[in-house]
Amino acid sequence: MAIIQSEYYSRAMCGFISFSAVLRIELPPTAGLPPRYAGGPWPTLYLLHGYSGARNDWLKNSPVEMLAAQYGIAVIMPEGGNRFWIDNPETGIRAGELIGEELITVTRGMFSLSREREDTLIGGLSMGGYGAIRNGLKYHDTFSTILAFSSALITTAYADGEFEKRTEMGVPSGYYFHVFGPKEKMAGSDMDPAALAAKCLGNNAPALFLACGSEDFLFSRNAELHEALTAMEYPHEWWVEPGIHNFDFWNRAIRAGLAWWDSRRKSGKEGAP
Amino acid sequence: MAIIQSEYYSRAMCGFISFSAVLRIELPPTAGLPPRYAGGPWPTLYLLHGYSGARNDWLKNSPVEMLAAQYGIAVIMPEGGNRFWIDNPETGIRAGELIGEELITVTRGMFSLSREREDTLIGGLSMGGYGAIRNGLKYHDTFSTILAFSSALITTAYADGEFEKRTEMGVPSGYYFHVFGPKEKMAGSDMDPAALAAKCLGNNAPALFLACGSEDFLFSRNAELHEALTAMEYPHEWWVEPGIHNFDFWNRAIRAGLAWWDSRRKSGKEGAP
Amino acid sequence: MAIIQSEYYSRAMCGFISFSAVLRIELPPTAGLPPRYAGGPWPTLYLLHGYSGARNDWLKNSPVEMLAAQYGIAVIMPEGGNRFWIDNPETGIRAGELIGEELITVTRGMFSLSREREDTLIGGLSMGGYGAIRNGLKYHDTFSTILAFSSALITTAYADGEFEKRTEMGVPSGYYFHVFGPKEKMAGSDMDPAALAAKCLGNNAPALFLACGSEDFLFSRNAELHEALTAMEYPHEWWVEPGIHNFDFWNRAIRAGLAWWDSRRKSGKEGAP
Amino acid sequence: MAIIQSEYYSRAMCGFISFSAVLRIELPPTAGLPPRYAGGPWPTLYLLHGYSGARNDWLKNSPVEMLAAQYGIAVIMPEGGNRFWIDNPETGIRAGELIGEELITVTRGMFSLSREREDTLIGGLSMGGYGAIRNGLKYHDTFSTILAFSSALITTAYADGEFEKRTEMGVPSGYYFHVFGPKEKMAGSDMDPAALAAKCLGNNAPALFLACGSEDFLFSRNAELHEALTAMEYPHEWWVEPGIHNFDFWNRAIRAGLAWWDSRRKSGKEGAP
Repeated sequence: MAIIQSEYYSRAMCGFISFSAVLRIELPPTAGLPPRYAGGPWPTLYLLHGYSGARNDWLKNSPVEMLAAQYGIAVIMPEGGNRFWIDNPETGIRAGELIGEELITVTRGMFSLSREREDTLIGGLSMGGYGAIRNGLKYHDTFSTILAFSSALITTAYADGEFEKRTEMGVPSGYYFHVFGPKEKMAGSDMDPAALAAKCLGNNAPALFLACGSEDFLFSRNAELHEALTAMEYPHEWWVEPGIHNFDFWNRAIRAGLAWWDSRRKSGKEGAP
Repeated sequence: MAIIQSEYYSRAMCGFISFSAVLRIELPPTAGLPPRYAGGPWPTLYLLHGYSGARNDWLKNSPVEMLAAQYGIAVIMPEGGNRFWIDNPETGIRAGELIGEELITVTRGMFSLSREREDTLIGGLSMGGYGAIRNGLKYHDTFSTILAFSSALITTAYADGEFEKRTEMGVPSGYYFHVFGPKEKMAGSDMDPAALAAKCLGNNAPALFLACGSEDFLFSRNAELHEALTAMEYPHEWWVEPGIHNFDFWNRAIRAGLAWWDSRRKSGKEGAP
Repeated sequence: MAIIQSEYYSRAMCGFISFSAVLRIELPPTAGLPPRYAGGPWPTLYLLHGYSGARNDWLKNSPVEMLAAQYGIAVIMPEGGNRFWIDNPETGIRAGELIGEELITVTRGMFSLSREREDTLIGGLSMGGYGAIRNGLKYHDTFSTILAFSSALITTAYADGEFEKRTEMGVPSGYYFHVFGPKEKMAGSDMDPAALAAKCLGNNAPALFLACGSEDFLFSRNAELHEALTAMEYPHEWWVEPGIHNFDFWNRAIRAGLAWWDSRRKSGKEGAP
Repeated sequence: MAIIQSEYYSRAMCGFISFSAVLRIELPPTAGLPPRYAGGPWPTLYLLHGYSGARNDWLKNSPVEMLAAQYGIAVIMPEGGNRFWIDNPETGIRAGELIGEELITVTRGMFSLSREREDTLIGGLSMGGYGAIRNGLKYHDTFSTILAFSSALITTAYADGEFEKRTEMGVPSGYYFHVFGPKEKMAGSDMDPAALAAKCLGNNAPALFLACGSEDFLFSRNAELHEALTAMEYPHEWWVEPGIHNFDFWNRAIRAGLAWWDSRRKSGKEGAP
């Protein structure tokens, strides 16, 4: 596998963005050894970091390189700041457009990646789990599969005013307002996971692997989405195991999520929840 | 010289920040060659990028590595986003605190850098020139010298409402409001260069090298600050040459600025405008 | 442009190799701006460093990023150690095979690069100039164009025993023997530029841009190859300007070399010396 | 922790070397949070890769960042090629001098590292385990502790002619000769671990943690060194657990090795086997 570090000027982000990537490489036959990994283009997982995370988190803390080799996929890991992977109309910085459009175009143009929907996955942890669900559903013609781990599904709580006095970790209440905008406009918007899911139903709805540790502080919020999806008959995998909000859980979850995707792929069901 | 790429979790930025650095290195004597660069700690230039820039801009586009060797200094180049290198009370992301406090502590603890005020410089181009002036003046007990190139001295224009309808390059008007806050509170605040300079006078006022190309679209704003500084008898170097807003000018300006610092250093005048 | 840093396990090098790259990127239309750089695959310049050099030398010291944008090419800059970019039968480390075969396969499989001979260039400075000539000629079915700057054309001198007592810079005489093998076998071998050129004549002979500063300590060796090529009527461009063995010359030479390639391309003459 | 990637021109290696590092960083108090990691300089582990490995192997495949935080140490991971971390008189490339002298001087001059012998450790896996033993013993006034995992202790076999026909993996027999020189001169030389250990006895002999998986193909060679050390009463820790030649074992071994070092440190025994 090749490890890549790249940076480019992003229109969507109004500045440079950095990303890391794991790519399979083709080696020619040599010294009596057969060629390796002949041929691309590869299925691709766009994999997002959490709040206060960075482009190398998955690379350093998980076996993502090994999993990429095992399943024959490329993994692209952008660094997006604490923007919940959505667009910000105030500053014009568009982290949702980055993930859903620009980075797809850029990396497909740059690397040897499949351009097929069935080969294009989005995943992430915590804030990145929210980002995977939100952008996987919003850009459902691009992504066939969503792998969401311990997702920060906090938009309902935000709409309910829960963070208005929250100042923990030095994060002021204004941060949430800056990210999500007026709370009255949240429900039903393109930041609302349940509303986005409902809109996809019957129309290229991505397959969703929704994973959360049973001791995670975000468990009840994930369970709520699971219930809402069940109620609307949005076919998804609800994967719960003992665990908290850390890489011990995320490493088990990404293994399980990719195995689930792979078995669906083999049975011809990817992208068809 | 060693080239460094580093990333760490920044409290001030509520997430990882990346920076690049150029450091002199000490080599032991070997194979009949004398030791090289024996001894530190080194004077240090904190060097800021412009709007939509990144940590490697100076490294790629200017002879900063050669200049660091020539003057015996370390250069630290953080990546700070489009935040004008000031704190944002709304999101809690504090790019001013990063430059004025945290990054100083972190890099002095990490590398072999001088901890003396007279050895600590701040510089930058465009938005980073503003950042150098603002933070050099605000943290005037830390920095003895400011090198400001083609500085984006736009706070007066902002206070005058000039950007309220500006939407060029996809930057919405809200961006300026997000960065600078209510325009009524700008004048006299710690974002106002002239007010900061006035406050420093007679009290560890950093030496200021104010450079601008005569064809730069920001020339008149730089000339205004020069006039305000002259009026208050803030000693500074006003360096004007033909040039526009690009690295051709910035490369001449950083050479001139470091030569100016070096000659002041040799005559014992650094940090004493 | 995207800047890339990559590393992968190389069979040819029996270990990891690192390379940097400059790639054009395609940006989708956004915020009223047109798409940018639509479409690949791109012509590619494989660009080699000199003795004691590294993958980032060209990136830091030359305007290679700007030139890549100007001419619409990708530039791949591998790090190969002090191996003169040839194979070493003793250790099994094959830096020639790396440049002539493996890296071509790997980067074409990884990035969106043209697979056409007429779009594939090799270049380098000093030891890398030798590497460009040697591998450009040896793998003449792969490369259509060679850009060689201040090339370390020392194989004739080596065969004549010139380095047997050379110990400057801590480089022992044994180094040359380790790199080039028995001096008696040099003439006419696939390490001998004139012999390689003769073999190509009339059979996919790459176009050669041979540049050297008139004050370079390697000037006479480059002039010798120019004369040998002239004698055998190997069509090539002999580009001499005042200059020594440094990036001031190499930056002028790479600009001239790419302009020469571009004008030949436009007149339909690339790869046809 | 800060992650560092650095490159510098190395006299010992006659070219650029790259290394990665994990450093603790000091953060100032902020937003009501206490300062973090106040003070250095830190104990330091120089950690070597194996054959065909690279500077990021430990960073990607082991919890070295977490262990560095846990034990309050810096970790420096150089990339040295397939040179067995010893000097090569033929080429003048001195990977032993790099590890034992130059990199120590460079990193101590660059970072905030302890200069005390008792705070300076060397470790590695496979070829790097050999390198740690060889250089830890040779430069025993610099290093107090050696952590050697699955070490490629092949010098006795080499002296016995075992590799003369070995061509597996494309590694020709000449490779070993190039690395180790005439086999007759091996025994008793400064490449012979048992001879180096005997020389240290009673004179700043580093504490040695010798770890090997019981199913490792190198087990018997490690057991031989253990027996030789036991016979000469060289105090060392012989750590055997089920395992083969992979990171599953190395990750258990580095945890055990650092815990062993830490408990010795706390009982005042470091560097006193």
